[in-house]
Amino acid sequence: MTTKQVRIGMVGYKFMGKAHSHAYRDASFFFDTEVEPVMQAICGRNEEGVKQAAQKMGWLSFETDWRKLINRDDIDLIDIVTPNNSHAEIAIAAAEAGKHVYCEKPLAFNLEQSKRMLEAVQKNNVLHMINYNYRFAPAVQFAKKLIESGRLGKIYHIRATYLQDWIMDPNFPLVWRLQKETCGSGSHGDLAAHLIDMARFLVGEFQEVNGILETFIKQRPIVEESSGLSGTASTEKMGDVDVDDASVFIARFENGAIGTFEATRFAAGNRNGNRFEINGEKGSIRWDVENMNHLDIYFHEDEPGLQGFRTINCTEDIHPYASAYWPAAHIIGYEHTFINLIVELLNGINKGCSPSPNFFDGVKNQAVLEAVERSSKTKQWVTIEEMLI
Amino acid sequence: MTTKQVRIGMVGYKFMGKAHSHAYRDASFFFDTEVEPVMQAICGRNEEGVKQAAQKMGWLSFETDWRKLINRDDIDLIDIVTPNNSHAEIAIAAAEAGKHVYCEKPLAFNLEQSKRMLEAVQKNNVLHMINYNYRFAPAVQFAKKLIESGRLGKIYHIRATYLQDWIMDPNFPLVWRLQKETCGSGSHGDLAAHLIDMARFLVGEFQEVNGILETFIKQRPIVEESSGLSGTASTEKMGDVDVDDASVFIARFENGAIGTFEATRFAAGNRNGNRFEINGEKGSIRWDVENMNHLDIYFHEDEPGLQGFRTINCTEDIHPYASAYWPAAHIIGYEHTFINLIVELLNGINKGCSPSPNFFDGVKNQAVLEAVERSSKTKQWVTIEEMLI
Amino acid sequence: MTTKQVRIGMVGYKFMGKAHSHAYRDASFFFDTEVEPVMQAICGRNEEGVKQAAQKMGWLSFETDWRKLINRDDIDLIDIVTPNNSHAEIAIAAAEAGKHVYCEKPLAFNLEQSKRMLEAVQKNNVLHMINYNYRFAPAVQFAKKLIESGRLGKIYHIRATYLQDWIMDPNFPLVWRLQKETCGSGSHGDLAAHLIDMARFLVGEFQEVNGILETFIKQRPIVEESSGLSGTASTEKMGDVDVDDASVFIARFENGAIGTFEATRFAAGNRNGNRFEINGEKGSIRWDVENMNHLDIYFHEDEPGLQGFRTINCTEDIHPYASAYWPAAHIIGYEHTFINLIVELLNGINKGCSPSPNFFDGVKNQAVLEAVERSSKTKQWVTIEEMLI
Amino acid sequence: MTTKQVRIGMVGYKFMGKAHSHAYRDASFFFDTEVEPVMQAICGRNEEGVKQAAQKMGWLSFETDWRKLINRDDIDLIDIVTPNNSHAEIAIAAAEAGKHVYCEKPLAFNLEQSKRMLEAVQKNNVLHMINYNYRFAPAVQFAKKLIESGRLGKIYHIRATYLQDWIMDPNFPLVWRLQKETCGSGSHGDLAAHLIDMARFLVGEFQEVNGILETFIKQRPIVEESSGLSGTASTEKMGDVDVDDASVFIARFENGAIGTFEATRFAAGNRNGNRFEINGEKGSIRWDVENMNHLDIYFHEDEPGLQGFRTINCTEDIHPYASAYWPAAHIIGYEHTFINLIVELLNGINKGCSPSPNFFDGVKNQAVLEAVERSSKTKQWVTIEEMLI
Repeated sequence: MTTKQVRIGMVGYKFMGKAHSHAYRDASFFFDTEVEPVMQAICGRNEEGVKQAAQKMGWLSFETDWRKLINRDDIDLIDIVTPNNSHAEIAIAAAEAGKHVYCEKPLAFNLEQSKRMLEAVQKNNVLHMINYNYRFAPAVQFAKKLIESGRLGKIYHIRATYLQDWIMDPNFPLVWRLQKETCGSGSHGDLAAHLIDMARFLVGEFQEVNGILETFIKQRPIVEESSGLSGTASTEKMGDVDVDDASVFIARFENGAIGTFEATRFAAGNRNGNRFEINGEKGSIRWDVENMNHLDIYFHEDEPGLQGFRTINCTEDIHPYASAYWPAAHIIGYEHTFINLIVELLNGINKGCSPSPNFFDGVKNQAVLEAVERSSKTKQWVTIEEMLI
Repeated sequence: MTTKQVRIGMVGYKFMGKAHSHAYRDASFFFDTEVEPVMQAICGRNEEGVKQAAQKMGWLSFETDWRKLINRDDIDLIDIVTPNNSHAEIAIAAAEAGKHVYCEKPLAFNLEQSKRMLEAVQKNNVLHMINYNYRFAPAVQFAKKLIESGRLGKIYHIRATYLQDWIMDPNFPLVWRLQKETCGSGSHGDLAAHLIDMARFLVGEFQEVNGILETFIKQRPIVEESSGLSGTASTEKMGDVDVDDASVFIARFENGAIGTFEATRFAAGNRNGNRFEINGEKGSIRWDVENMNHLDIYFHEDEPGLQGFRTINCTEDIHPYASAYWPAAHIIGYEHTFINLIVELLNGINKGCSPSPNFFDGVKNQAVLEAVERSSKTKQWVTIEEMLI
Repeated sequence: MTTKQVRIGMVGYKFMGKAHSHAYRDASFFFDTEVEPVMQAICGRNEEGVKQAAQKMGWLSFETDWRKLINRDDIDLIDIVTPNNSHAEIAIAAAEAGKHVYCEKPLAFNLEQSKRMLEAVQKNNVLHMINYNYRFAPAVQFAKKLIESGRLGKIYHIRATYLQDWIMDPNFPLVWRLQKETCGSGSHGDLAAHLIDMARFLVGEFQEVNGILETFIKQRPIVEESSGLSGTASTEKMGDVDVDDASVFIARFENGAIGTFEATRFAAGNRNGNRFEINGEKGSIRWDVENMNHLDIYFHEDEPGLQGFRTINCTEDIHPYASAYWPAAHIIGYEHTFINLIVELLNGINKGCSPSPNFFDGVKNQAVLEAVERSSKTKQWVTIEEMLI
Repeated sequence: MTTKQVRIGMVGYKFMGKAHSHAYRDASFFFDTEVEPVMQAICGRNEEGVKQAAQKMGWLSFETDWRKLINRDDIDLIDIVTPNNSHAEIAIAAAEAGKHVYCEKPLAFNLEQSKRMLEAVQKNNVLHMINYNYRFAPAVQFAKKLIESGRLGKIYHIRATYLQDWIMDPNFPLVWRLQKETCGSGSHGDLAAHLIDMARFLVGEFQEVNGILETFIKQRPIVEESSGLSGTASTEKMGDVDVDDASVFIARFENGAIGTFEATRFAAGNRNGNRFEINGEKGSIRWDVENMNHLDIYFHEDEPGLQGFRTINCTEDIHPYASAYWPAAHIIGYEHTFINLIVELLNGINKGCSPSPNFFDGVKNQAVLEAVERSSKTKQWVTIEEMLI
């Protein structure tokens, strides 16, 4: 039975705060972990808002100043779910305060910050993890096992897309997610970052990239105060959109594979189209987060005449994480990617080592992101190596 | 903010106990209900088992005698998740003890018991509900809205199947779910009951039915002690399977619609194939629990040339229950059907009226189940009316 | 090279006449058959119409009196594509004139006629075939091979539907396909007949059936002259619809399998939904004519964790008939079911034996059709045996 | 009725020769065209082979020297289905002999040849067409209509793939399609050419491109004599593969859209995966040649809650070309893209103007192909404008 505890302090409490909070609550219901998460404190600038959030989501206390939070003695781990421009400062301070750090993706506002964050967690010898949650869909973990055991052979291709459509309306306001000073980028850091993590996880390290960041709607109505995704325009003043609406790029991998990638918020009808297909010399796999329990698998060595993609519902006891939940084909959803990730975080804390993906992955991911941005500006191929020097 | 509470006592703690427990935990995280569930006590005959279950799932106390549980003053509602043969005794006793009753499906071992259960809750003036959870998939609730608002027009057809394959192996042992004295029936009460509820919810009342209950594997290895679904044979002795492996029937509805229904545990490759299609004069809908977030919809009045089934991901704020969860197309799973149902239960308690589906539905459902069984024996059509007299 | 010829005389020239004519033209382009079809003469009552049809479709001559056609010395085979009420008279006369007979389905207006037709071809020792064309989709032929070689094991279930929606509009006129005196039945003989053939081909012989024939729209506008499927009402007079709009039934097979069947013209959004799923002890198959090149296959003995339906594109050289056409996944369509059937007809003529399906199949099919009709009237189960006495 | 004729002389008779021949035969069966094709002569170097092909496919005569063919007085149009390295010589000679020219894709071995071919047909005032057949799938023509009528609004994205897997086996021999001197390129000219045509047809003109041509298997067994696609290695000698196995590129269009493209013969499980998705400000469309009758369509202005991709079976009378064939949802296949194209060719000849796509399209397509190749070598973006100077 669980005896050890890890006391969490979370900074931020909107969309991702809800997803993380829920995962802390459900992790020990579904899994037997050696370490149990305690939802110690939540932090936000708006006192009334954070108080209500704490009560609603089950946090034992709240703070309005993150510096105070990270200095509390009863906190072991800082969970950062704030906008990208504040990750570095909080994470570095937390590490210096001796706290483990679990951070939202992308790791930071830019590569340089990412590197400093990695240095900080290393120097202060704290554990670290980054929230590339889609890795933790059982179907994706199963795909990883198949690839690692050689079932697909040498990988030739990956094509991955993350297609959304929530800002297609030109009257959609200039919320914080569309502002460079807050986010660093648009669909690129938000969506392409997920594709890059998936490719690194399943295919391997990127070697060089070449792409386009594009903004289709150049001006949008300014909002007085952006309130999450659904902010509404409170004025008729227009402001410049200085982040990308879409990011497309091609890539070479160190192992010889090639890839095409596309992230966009302008693909009408695609609400959350995070999809990939990987082709190897012995087979192929396909995945789509909107049907995240399924993995389509093709084996080139299947009997002639009977070769075709199989649709596997990765909800059987034999599939990763699945036995903790429900009987076969009683499907699970988005929130379970967080629960599974938290289980790995708890296991990492138990063993005293940072689970994957962690800040190393965060830095490498950001190097690819920034290489694509550079290629878009210079119209040249950019190697990942030159970004990491 | 929530002020009122309802204190739950749950009898049983296996598969359904887990699903119910989880729903109690998550309901107030996702929803703002006037009444808050308190997981007061859980009950099971095996002390060690129930103690561990209580700890794991978050129940405040436990009992080993259900009679003691229903007489506790600190319990407001009895939740029954035991095998079918014990529902009636527990529910009637609970009602007589003045407790609200929330019962697993099918309502009872047979129609006669069901009727007595309904009498008991009515006489004792307690609230009641039955766990036909699939109604509470957002896509199904949305389908209901479309039908009620006339978007499909008069209904002509329903075809519904619940296909599983978990006992196809002839060496699968004679677990309690395959024994008449425990369950009353096999796939019929387990799976066809869900189809009947869905049809009653979306199409209307059954008028008459005619069907077949079939047992493909007549003998199976006896198990010393069945341990849930995955019991293994501990002896080579064979026992008779006295429940059905499959149930198929045709039906006429009071409103003139006709239907075909099929429930089986012998449909290889179908792990949990709970599916239906309904055709009306103005359109059609299709649903499959294995992709439970989607509803396929066809409108006959769509522009010529552009008519086709639309695949709607019922995860937008406009869809029932969906705004409580995640952004569009961040899918939810099986467990959410329970959470949504519990929200209705809590709302019902707040208002002092039994939500749907309740014991009235349980009796009507059981009348259809038993009519099909009778038709299988007599090889005659059986009306629902004659069952309810 | 082809040396032998079979000279065809076709009676009728509308929808099926076009499909048959095309197949005769294309058969020897794609296949090397020992016998070559010669499109000798076409016959229809309207001289101008049949003359144009002959020219358009490539027939060498035409007739306006089918009796004259069957007595021509330069005709070897009579192809009957007229409405159901005339099949028997033409086929029997053709057989008596010593011509081979290839007849549209269902074989006749009723079972009694079917039996007489079979007697006639037997007595006169002519070859005979019936146009259950869907058997000849490569995917279906491949399914047959899998079943025959035991890949699915003992069959437990078939569920088959043929769903259309072309007469849902209550103003759709009373065309000949909706009149009993011409067709004998509605969706039953038109669509359910195909389902019955498919079930007999893949599962085996029916033992007993029980079903419903239903007419949703009881009256429709009368047309002065029905011109094919798309006849328009030329008057406001209403007439009674005396055929079924839908037919649903359940069945037991001689080998112990059970089935559900549904044919309807009232399933909005289903233009041509001829689909089935068959479940056996070792696996399952699914097929849908609207994606007729694909066969979905599940093998119960696939490696655990990797079990799922495979989507096979049955267009590879290894699949039946496929090597005659195009490279893999360059799909074929509806008309190819006719071409493949004609190839079997030509091969049968070469070998001097009637290919399957032939008039024996036509009689058995009609026995099942009529058993369902009888069950609908008597509300009793009807055995096929009692129909065939 | 048809009165005019066009007498065809075809050079080559393998895979494409079969597809073209079949289309000539079927065009006037299904359509009423003012001009009728006459299959006058077929030409190939191997006398026995071409003689058999003529007989089998219905050509009235044959030649073994294409120069003789193009000088025959009884030929009006030369149809070129030979390997890419011979297109230019034959087409230019045919044009100079006053024959219309219908040529397989890609137009030529390289851009320079393409330009000369265009000059020749223009100078000699003959009609010309190129066989980008996939444009002529009814679903694609319907997509074109929707886009042209503004139903998708301004186009933002296209992502298109043509995925095959037929040469994945390293022992697959070095057939002519894998040799630069015959084909010019590998998957690029064979498959990417189709993607480029589709993008030009539906989205508009390319502005600049940047891509990779990759060869995964650098050496393959030499064959003494390659016999079509299925050549087998007759020796153990290995030869260098000097064409690409895969081609991936990103693109900007003149109208501001951006695109990703991928053509490969190494995508295991994808036999003929010619697919695209196009996203515009008002909606999206998706197509897949393996289900070529279907077009998936999304309209952003559909009623909230009811927005989703519709699957349209483009086989209704209202859809392009469809009324010539079968009733709704009686699907057509690959060969119909050729029949529909031939109908346009015949209509063009009737009107005296070159139908689309013609040699103008062939040159522009080849400019894009060659721009991608150049970008792969120089690792720079290449504009189409600079290729066309």
